[in-house]
Amino acid sequence: MGNPVLVEVLRGNVVESRHRGAIAVFEADGGKVMSLGDVDRPVFPRSAVKAIQALPFVESGAADAFGFGNREIALACASHSGEPEHAALAIAMVERAGLGSDAFECGAHWSSEQHVLIAQARDLVEPTAAHNNCSGKHAGFLCTCAHLGHDPQGYVALGHPAQDAVKAAMEAVTGAAHETDLCGTDGCSIPTYAVPLKALAHGFARMATGTGFAPERAKAAKRIFAACMAEPFYVAGSGRADTLMMEAGKGRIFTKTGAEGVFCAAIPERGIGIALKCDDGTTRAAEVMVAEVLAQLLDGDALAETLRDMARPVLTNRRGFEVGSLRPSEALVVRAD
Amino acid sequence: MGNPVLVEVLRGNVVESRHRGAIAVFEADGGKVMSLGDVDRPVFPRSAVKAIQALPFVESGAADAFGFGNREIALACASHSGEPEHAALAIAMVERAGLGSDAFECGAHWSSEQHVLIAQARDLVEPTAAHNNCSGKHAGFLCTCAHLGHDPQGYVALGHPAQDAVKAAMEAVTGAAHETDLCGTDGCSIPTYAVPLKALAHGFARMATGTGFAPERAKAAKRIFAACMAEPFYVAGSGRADTLMMEAGKGRIFTKTGAEGVFCAAIPERGIGIALKCDDGTTRAAEVMVAEVLAQLLDGDALAETLRDMARPVLTNRRGFEVGSLRPSEALVVRAD
Repeated sequence: MGNPVLVEVLRGNVVESRHRGAIAVFEADGGKVMSLGDVDRPVFPRSAVKAIQALPFVESGAADAFGFGNREIALACASHSGEPEHAALAIAMVERAGLGSDAFECGAHWSSEQHVLIAQARDLVEPTAAHNNCSGKHAGFLCTCAHLGHDPQGYVALGHPAQDAVKAAMEAVTGAAHETDLCGTDGCSIPTYAVPLKALAHGFARMATGTGFAPERAKAAKRIFAACMAEPFYVAGSGRADTLMMEAGKGRIFTKTGAEGVFCAAIPERGIGIALKCDDGTTRAAEVMVAEVLAQLLDGDALAETLRDMARPVLTNRRGFEVGSLRPSEALVVRAD
Repeated sequence: MGNPVLVEVLRGNVVESRHRGAIAVFEADGGKVMSLGDVDRPVFPRSAVKAIQALPFVESGAADAFGFGNREIALACASHSGEPEHAALAIAMVERAGLGSDAFECGAHWSSEQHVLIAQARDLVEPTAAHNNCSGKHAGFLCTCAHLGHDPQGYVALGHPAQDAVKAAMEAVTGAAHETDLCGTDGCSIPTYAVPLKALAHGFARMATGTGFAPERAKAAKRIFAACMAEPFYVAGSGRADTLMMEAGKGRIFTKTGAEGVFCAAIPERGIGIALKCDDGTTRAAEVMVAEVLAQLLDGDALAETLRDMARPVLTNRRGFEVGSLRPSEALVVRAD
């Protein structure tokens, strides 16, 4: 009868809203640590898999050829807020590859973060494709095309070598077939395939450990994770959950949000991958879920306390008074099955 | 095992996200037209009951004393977008009562509507309390205090005559006791009480018909509904669901959104009241639910076609390509029980 309620929204002492979801926690050898809800149903991972989608960018040698460091690799895995540093770095990346910002095919949008949008409205006539939260990923695609001698035009389309490489990496890492009838178009115009959460969790455990990967891929995966954990501002932005969690983690946890309530994460030192989706697609609940799962998995560690606080955000009203909170439900318990 | 899935979010041909909820449709004599899910569980109606909360403003004679017409009464029932016309009218209302905009106790916030926020960021240093989506309701409270000779200071607090009158109106109209242990604080700082959806639906049917009300209250309720239906821009704003539905309805339907996925509505010519809540608090799904319920109840009517389209919005990506849609689930069927 559906996935369990995993997050509750309180106003006063009353539960005002409820978020259901499913969570998969797997090891790199495919062993299950735990699961809640239906982890076999295909879900679109959306931007939560950008680290996997960035494998061709690093494996092909493109990142090295253009002299990119942690910031550029982190931005290639980002759903950034469109802050000036993000847009400038995305443009610098494509320029390094001899391309202009007219090469981006992700479309433009104003920042989803209110404080950034206010600054953008005051500084810009309109946002550009470089401000798109996916522009770093697209810079990675474009740089890879340039490095490999592929015509970048149409790089977002199904069947372009850039998307063939992304699909091959996704299938190899997750072990899940990417079926045509489970293909949709992402917000930034590239194909996205629905796959089971258990395959995503398994894939993120392998990204963290390199288990079963050829040496070049294992090296690329570790470099990508290290870059994101070293430069978390470039993966998201000021005040964003991924940035705050990875800043607190100091290189010990990897997290990445995706649209419609998805999160993928990993604890490299434990060889564990995590994938979850809030059924209703709400980010506030997915953030509580990922912080709580990480906190429970790291129970007894000082880092767990910080994550536990992040899983219980206070809600204030328009005058700043505390009026409620979000909290994990009693069903959100990590137990080895 | 929980409320049914009532709205599906599609990407390509795949259901990406799901929204559960409960819907109550009742007649003014308390007879049930239909219900889906749990309509006995108390929910916070939030701003969906502003029309009921505006009864003291009209019944007391305050609205007449200050010469207010449809726009002012509509604004007193509004969750407006903070567009310049909204803020200006809220200020004009309190000034008519001899008060200044420093009397507002709702707090200030930037508009939740992106297009309005961009304009605000360019025009304003900071938003004021007059831009708060609830400023019209608060103008109504303040004008009522001024008219009745109550000290307006602290008018948002539990126990102030303004809130006593609101609570009494809410209890009388809905027939539901407002319990202290089900009291929370709303976004604009006034008390809000959780009550069953069935009581809210019954209350909105009575607001539409005046059934069981004293003549003064029946007249005030009809005047409030008529004002909102005549001036739907002042109830919400450009492009907003309430405004679009009531514009299309041309005086035949009343709708009002509330935070955390609530909607109340009425079809006066049928004597029917509607109250619903999306479990997870998501507005996009509550909008689909209310449009679909109204469309089904008005089946065969030209207005139903417009509402049916509103219940099936297309989702586009950052380049404007159609990538998905929202739709009512197969469970969202209005049947007389």
